[in-house]
Amino acid sequence: MKFEKPKKVKAAVMTGAGKMEIRSYPFPEIDDDSAIVKIDMCGICGTDKHIYKGDSSEIRGKLIFPFIDGHEMIGTLVEIGDNAAKSMEADNLVLKVGDRVAVAVEINCGKCWYCKNQYDNATCKDQVRAYGIHPTCDEPPYLMGGFAEYMYIFPNSVLFKIPEDMPTETAVFVEEMAVAYSALARAAQPYSPINEGFGPGDTVAVLGNGPLGALHGIMAKIQGAGTIITTDLADYRLKITKDLFADYTINASTTTQEERIQQVLELTDGIGPDLVIEAAGEPQVFIEALEMVRKSGTVIEVGNWVDREDTVEINVMKHITSKNLHIHSLYHCGNNWGPVLNVMDKFSSQFPFERLISHRMNLEEIVENMSIVTDPNKCMKVEVVPFK
Amino acid sequence: MKFEKPKKVKAAVMTGAGKMEIRSYPFPEIDDDSAIVKIDMCGICGTDKHIYKGDSSEIRGKLIFPFIDGHEMIGTLVEIGDNAAKSMEADNLVLKVGDRVAVAVEINCGKCWYCKNQYDNATCKDQVRAYGIHPTCDEPPYLMGGFAEYMYIFPNSVLFKIPEDMPTETAVFVEEMAVAYSALARAAQPYSPINEGFGPGDTVAVLGNGPLGALHGIMAKIQGAGTIITTDLADYRLKITKDLFADYTINASTTTQEERIQQVLELTDGIGPDLVIEAAGEPQVFIEALEMVRKSGTVIEVGNWVDREDTVEINVMKHITSKNLHIHSLYHCGNNWGPVLNVMDKFSSQFPFERLISHRMNLEEIVENMSIVTDPNKCMKVEVVPFK
Amino acid sequence: MKFEKPKKVKAAVMTGAGKMEIRSYPFPEIDDDSAIVKIDMCGICGTDKHIYKGDSSEIRGKLIFPFIDGHEMIGTLVEIGDNAAKSMEADNLVLKVGDRVAVAVEINCGKCWYCKNQYDNATCKDQVRAYGIHPTCDEPPYLMGGFAEYMYIFPNSVLFKIPEDMPTETAVFVEEMAVAYSALARAAQPYSPINEGFGPGDTVAVLGNGPLGALHGIMAKIQGAGTIITTDLADYRLKITKDLFADYTINASTTTQEERIQQVLELTDGIGPDLVIEAAGEPQVFIEALEMVRKSGTVIEVGNWVDREDTVEINVMKHITSKNLHIHSLYHCGNNWGPVLNVMDKFSSQFPFERLISHRMNLEEIVENMSIVTDPNKCMKVEVVPFK
Amino acid sequence: MKFEKPKKVKAAVMTGAGKMEIRSYPFPEIDDDSAIVKIDMCGICGTDKHIYKGDSSEIRGKLIFPFIDGHEMIGTLVEIGDNAAKSMEADNLVLKVGDRVAVAVEINCGKCWYCKNQYDNATCKDQVRAYGIHPTCDEPPYLMGGFAEYMYIFPNSVLFKIPEDMPTETAVFVEEMAVAYSALARAAQPYSPINEGFGPGDTVAVLGNGPLGALHGIMAKIQGAGTIITTDLADYRLKITKDLFADYTINASTTTQEERIQQVLELTDGIGPDLVIEAAGEPQVFIEALEMVRKSGTVIEVGNWVDREDTVEINVMKHITSKNLHIHSLYHCGNNWGPVLNVMDKFSSQFPFERLISHRMNLEEIVENMSIVTDPNKCMKVEVVPFK
Repeated sequence: MKFEKPKKVKAAVMTGAGKMEIRSYPFPEIDDDSAIVKIDMCGICGTDKHIYKGDSSEIRGKLIFPFIDGHEMIGTLVEIGDNAAKSMEADNLVLKVGDRVAVAVEINCGKCWYCKNQYDNATCKDQVRAYGIHPTCDEPPYLMGGFAEYMYIFPNSVLFKIPEDMPTETAVFVEEMAVAYSALARAAQPYSPINEGFGPGDTVAVLGNGPLGALHGIMAKIQGAGTIITTDLADYRLKITKDLFADYTINASTTTQEERIQQVLELTDGIGPDLVIEAAGEPQVFIEALEMVRKSGTVIEVGNWVDREDTVEINVMKHITSKNLHIHSLYHCGNNWGPVLNVMDKFSSQFPFERLISHRMNLEEIVENMSIVTDPNKCMKVEVVPFK
Repeated sequence: MKFEKPKKVKAAVMTGAGKMEIRSYPFPEIDDDSAIVKIDMCGICGTDKHIYKGDSSEIRGKLIFPFIDGHEMIGTLVEIGDNAAKSMEADNLVLKVGDRVAVAVEINCGKCWYCKNQYDNATCKDQVRAYGIHPTCDEPPYLMGGFAEYMYIFPNSVLFKIPEDMPTETAVFVEEMAVAYSALARAAQPYSPINEGFGPGDTVAVLGNGPLGALHGIMAKIQGAGTIITTDLADYRLKITKDLFADYTINASTTTQEERIQQVLELTDGIGPDLVIEAAGEPQVFIEALEMVRKSGTVIEVGNWVDREDTVEINVMKHITSKNLHIHSLYHCGNNWGPVLNVMDKFSSQFPFERLISHRMNLEEIVENMSIVTDPNKCMKVEVVPFK
Repeated sequence: MKFEKPKKVKAAVMTGAGKMEIRSYPFPEIDDDSAIVKIDMCGICGTDKHIYKGDSSEIRGKLIFPFIDGHEMIGTLVEIGDNAAKSMEADNLVLKVGDRVAVAVEINCGKCWYCKNQYDNATCKDQVRAYGIHPTCDEPPYLMGGFAEYMYIFPNSVLFKIPEDMPTETAVFVEEMAVAYSALARAAQPYSPINEGFGPGDTVAVLGNGPLGALHGIMAKIQGAGTIITTDLADYRLKITKDLFADYTINASTTTQEERIQQVLELTDGIGPDLVIEAAGEPQVFIEALEMVRKSGTVIEVGNWVDREDTVEINVMKHITSKNLHIHSLYHCGNNWGPVLNVMDKFSSQFPFERLISHRMNLEEIVENMSIVTDPNKCMKVEVVPFK
Repeated sequence: MKFEKPKKVKAAVMTGAGKMEIRSYPFPEIDDDSAIVKIDMCGICGTDKHIYKGDSSEIRGKLIFPFIDGHEMIGTLVEIGDNAAKSMEADNLVLKVGDRVAVAVEINCGKCWYCKNQYDNATCKDQVRAYGIHPTCDEPPYLMGGFAEYMYIFPNSVLFKIPEDMPTETAVFVEEMAVAYSALARAAQPYSPINEGFGPGDTVAVLGNGPLGALHGIMAKIQGAGTIITTDLADYRLKITKDLFADYTINASTTTQEERIQQVLELTDGIGPDLVIEAAGEPQVFIEALEMVRKSGTVIEVGNWVDREDTVEINVMKHITSKNLHIHSLYHCGNNWGPVLNVMDKFSSQFPFERLISHRMNLEEIVENMSIVTDPNKCMKVEVVPFK
């Protein structure tokens, strides 16, 4: 059945901090090297919420507003150029209309030192674009984010074909799972016999359990984690982690940092966790992680993606030097999503990813409710479903 | 209730290749630094079978016969000296009569270059003793292997207290799981973004699925393995791996090496497995592993523990150089069993280890049946239970 | 000064095993995406010698003859298309006529699983071309190897600009140093505190000290190797290694394998080397490496690049399993030559690479002398210098 | 010649912050398990200076004063018990009177989780003693630090025999080189092809170049470092680093943090160093290291050994998360000194360690001058030589 191009494409546009509205744009033209996807589902990320709250007026050195939000999208190809069909898929599969795909967020310059020397990252010095993040939607082809009915796929984009039998509600987590995959990879140093780095049986604390934290907990569990302890401000989220992967939970809104560290110490035989993952996105929680982790342990800092220009105080000797630590930070989702999809495919029955989805909203609903999707007591993952 | 020392202790003694008999020995005396365990359960290992079959007349440079076989033992302390109680436990727990323990197989010299420079291994140049392996049982205290009612625990032995709620039928696999733990640790190189070394989602082939192979498969699965393919001579064993962890199985008695490699290639999208584990203990299967693994993949060689003095032909360019491989061999169970017990404790509901036990035999039964416990069509793990 | 295109370009063509002759070809035309280099210097590699000797009739699955040999070339750009100038340099430097460059040997398909998933290698399933290796020189643009006055640079080739002050006689070793760099990288596991993998102070044996072996020795020394022992059939080569990096040398033509192993044992306090590098390219020397290395040590197999279809016998238990080894093989020069040039630049005063050059021959001389450049008693590195 | 026991042993005692005096003690008695060394030379460490300045009133949870300072000592055995002779040497060499030895600083409890699970560290929860650090010298055997004529060696100490031909002025750096060895080991992740972790050719900045910083620079150079940049408050120290290993130096007393970062950026082609080593021991310099290092680079924090209870401000997103870093801290000298001595032996002609020694003082001189040995413009390494 031939695809009937709509005249107009509806999108939810963020026009400034705290401001969203529905706009409509012309359906874009493609050439041999580009494509169009119909958006099936697009997650809302913590970064999106920070932008909405006005925590930052620019991202990666570029002004934001107005823009079409959403970078965790699964879409179905409705149009694709001949060259694009042959070259865009990460594993070199030939693509065709009707294929369901995930879209790599970034198109990097390919020319700076980082692009030439680093395999995958968001450290490019002159990033061309990042879907759902920049640039603005004031210029053609306008449709460059996931909170819209259709999205334009630029030449040199990287797409990942979704396995036939993987539900979209699983696949939509691939971008965040790719972060978790890379973060755990950085932490996975030879674990035997020196008991440093993350290995099977190790105790793990995940601080902050929005979707990104929870997915790190799931990835750690998939890799053989022993006892897992989660903390969050909301019992609502803690319950989900308990159901999915956590052994113990601690509510951070009713405890002090000192109390949490003490409780975790008791839950780990007086030693402290082997690995602490900071995914709360609060600078102070990085300090909490440093205090909580056992000596010679490992800390992953993956929560603070937006520069709110605030600082916290650190005692270098006490928090870092004397603890003999390995600290790894991560600020990209990589481009190695093939193995990540493979992991998700293998483990989605054991860890039903869709359990993390608390809301499915169409474009009008997200415009109306963006202000409340940040409430950790009500929301886990909110998915935008334009054609709900 | 006080323990009543028996006058005589019964043991199954291997007196030569193919020869076993029941003998009895005096109950040993202990001092401050030694102990006695009542044997609850002791597994039969592939090495035991090779010795029985006469494949080797010495182990680690020492003559064997006559000896009391069995080095995978779980026992209950019935007597323990004061110093031993305070110093023998690996995590420094204070031990007492009634505690259930696993016993580290080796007591190494502590003085050679290897002992001084390597954390844990069986590479000691002047190994003092290895329970169930050497020395002979012709001299006091005689009882130095697990196929007996009681075993003497020498000074400087290392014991691991078994968690209260872990069934003996799970705990008895700790020695082999420790091999698997160390083997996978050697193979676990940073897996992202270079796709070398073993990481989550990776495809794995386990060649040879007696207990050691099967436990490597389970450990790989615990660490996030993707598709797992198992091969074995016996459908009986393949079925168990299918039930526990394998996605596909191939019977090696009805296929040629070439056919197996071809089938595995098809099951891995024409690439070959990322990791191949050789646990069959047949030298030729090492060559099969080298041919099967994908380029830049990883091979673990952990099957050939006994020198049968036979060789196989290898084409170095074709099998090694041109494949750009990482090959890791392992010949010890390490002494880092704490994390291993932790892993087993966490995952025993998902992987019920006792499913690997095909037979439970008392001492008389093992003497009678030792010749048939090697039949892969009938036996998986055979456990000796002296007080059955 | 403008470059005057010659009418004819002279090349040394290998027309069959043992046969070389001078032929001449038309000067190629370039377009926007291609270029021409004047060959300044091009090394002869062990693989070239094996092909000449008829050890293999095809390379990487492709027929060879007739072809223009030579893949270790440094050339000067005499013509370059506009696109090529902007995109060919590995670090994205803009190229211009007059620039001196090294040329990456392979142009891979970019589409197979390996190209998509592995960063750099010669494991491509459908390699497009390899300069100086394939394809034949029977079709335009003919000039695809380094033993010629000029070479055509295809679109999508990767060039590395040579630092201004690096002599060509140093730069010409970059391809082999890139092999050594990658090989040592594979071997460099965390060396403290477990004393596995290669670390500073470790004892090293390099078996076979043609240029590739000697460069591995130099790279190991650059990374802090302790005692280094070299073996070779020729005193001529051993003397060069002694002058440049070796502490001890053993002539392999006057000793048995057993004697060498015994001597190396004595030179390493009875332990054996921590790392043994097999670069002799004789299959049996791989077995020698396995016997020589200490338990829990590391072996690099980087010598056997050509399939001569011969095998050697290996005792898997004795040579592999029981030694608790890490074996890494390497079969590519990678594409990460930037850091390699950096290393060479820093250390060329300490290790004067030109000392490895034993002969400089023009095209006529190499045609005449190819049969003798394999004599280890007279030759170390032979460099072809078309405009000598 | 028999050793004549002196009646009295002279020691330089630190009695409080800023206070030192000469005291004398009885010559200690030994038993089978202990020994006495005559102090040949003992370095003054940054920690010693901090204690003298009163920056901390306790070390590792223990009160300090009065105590005999000095933990970097080389001594000659003058008395040794029979058991000690057979068991104290790290490589199990048999010791005898007249042997020159280095003394491992710490005697750990051997019983806590850390001692049981970590190979080597200062993370022991109940450290028995640390020579020259604790405990006080108010109780027999009094002589437990290196600023004295003789020192008592407790049972279970670990000694390292110094190679015959290594000068004491080289050997005395082994403790600090062991820190550098372990620190670089932590940082040495597989460097190819992902360009993360420290590998050969990498650019390095060493911030703070007292002896510990300079020795880290030397160790990095031994392992193949590319360009090395050093910073320090004193030109005196920078000149020494320039002579020994540094390519560029920056005086930190005449530049702002911003200027230094800018200069280092220019010296590294606008990228920033691959590895930054913080050895200044100023908390703010840790922040400088984070700002200076390139994205995806590595930071070693090894400078802040004393808790001065001051903090610095850190912007977690800007300094950590967004930079995609690996940070490793180190707070021990390990117990793996054998390979370290081996490295020093091999490289002492290339890096003459004695060049770092600026002063040699006897006990009276150190009592008089302790207040000025901290002046970076006049002092590099100050060695105490009791029998000068």
